[in-house]
Amino acid sequence: MGAFTESMGRLIDEFAKLPGIGRRTAERLAYHVLSSREEGAIGLALAIRDVVRRTKECAACFNAAEAERCSICSDSRRDQSVVWVVEEVKDLIALEKTGEVTGVYHVLKGRISPMAGKGPEDLTIDNLLKRIRKQKVKEVVLATNPDLEGDMTSQYIVEKLKGSQVKLSRIARGIPQGSSIEYANKAILTDAITGRQEVEG
Amino acid sequence: MGAFTESMGRLIDEFAKLPGIGRRTAERLAYHVLSSREEGAIGLALAIRDVVRRTKECAACFNAAEAERCSICSDSRRDQSVVWVVEEVKDLIALEKTGEVTGVYHVLKGRISPMAGKGPEDLTIDNLLKRIRKQKVKEVVLATNPDLEGDMTSQYIVEKLKGSQVKLSRIARGIPQGSSIEYANKAILTDAITGRQEVEG
Repeated sequence: MGAFTESMGRLIDEFAKLPGIGRRTAERLAYHVLSSREEGAIGLALAIRDVVRRTKECAACFNAAEAERCSICSDSRRDQSVVWVVEEVKDLIALEKTGEVTGVYHVLKGRISPMAGKGPEDLTIDNLLKRIRKQKVKEVVLATNPDLEGDMTSQYIVEKLKGSQVKLSRIARGIPQGSSIEYANKAILTDAITGRQEVEG
Repeated sequence: MGAFTESMGRLIDEFAKLPGIGRRTAERLAYHVLSSREEGAIGLALAIRDVVRRTKECAACFNAAEAERCSICSDSRRDQSVVWVVEEVKDLIALEKTGEVTGVYHVLKGRISPMAGKGPEDLTIDNLLKRIRKQKVKEVVLATNPDLEGDMTSQYIVEKLKGSQVKLSRIARGIPQGSSIEYANKAILTDAITGRQEVEG
């Protein structure tokens, strides 16, 4: 039994399942719940339940949504003719936070990964292609992760859209802002060199 | 509305209320709940609810308990004649983990703190004194935190027990194992010096 009650032990186990939460932190969090009983703790439990119950997938882009369409797809100020293709909702969130994306998104729900036995048919690529055909999509921006599987996934979409009138682009890769050339690896520097952009003189 | 749904926003707020959880981490945890829907997430919600619902205070020592008595007080192998006095349940947990305590505990539920307007009557000191009178308590070990308010709290209990037959002791303070004398401050070194213990020659 140890120092904890049964329900505390179980709560610690549950907290420890969260990413980046070690045993020590899980104990601290569980203790916080214990000592803030009633007031705060139940709010967290209800919030978790609500996310699980209410969250659906946007029928258009597969973003998290609480209605048929997500808040981005149903926002009339967004440019529906530019579709940013991402692997996961978390990528969408990261891009959205920059405030630079005025278009809409399409969440692939993963990436092509032979190692994980995941092929194009396991992603929402067919939905993307249908969407492009039906709507007046002018540009598709590929924003998959800059690695082998991300590139493979983007490449697959590029092949599928060959011959269509849609403009294709890919988010830029190069040396990350704030880092130094000295510490960048060969692959990063190669991207930075081959992707160099003209500067107005 | 931002990048998150309403329920996700609320879950992030709730996670961010937890101690040591910043905004970034809260978002990561909420995203984990979102993507692990059904399966894992509800377990955490239920575990929180159960801790809140089931946890009571031990009628004897004020430890967290799921029955009238906590698992320590109701363990017949524990020495009921030695009572370790701590401020909070978290202190009990820390001591209990050492496996060195064979006695039982008494949780004061705080400390005397003039700054916070907390006096002895706000703690469980009366219960402790009653307990000592009624049961055959031989030793009381004061394990309040080694600072001004902790000392004040212990000192108050010492005064109250003056003239009783109970042996009083205090957990040792000194230089912490693994640290170095060079970096210890004056107060720590003074404790280490005045508390020096004889070594068998």
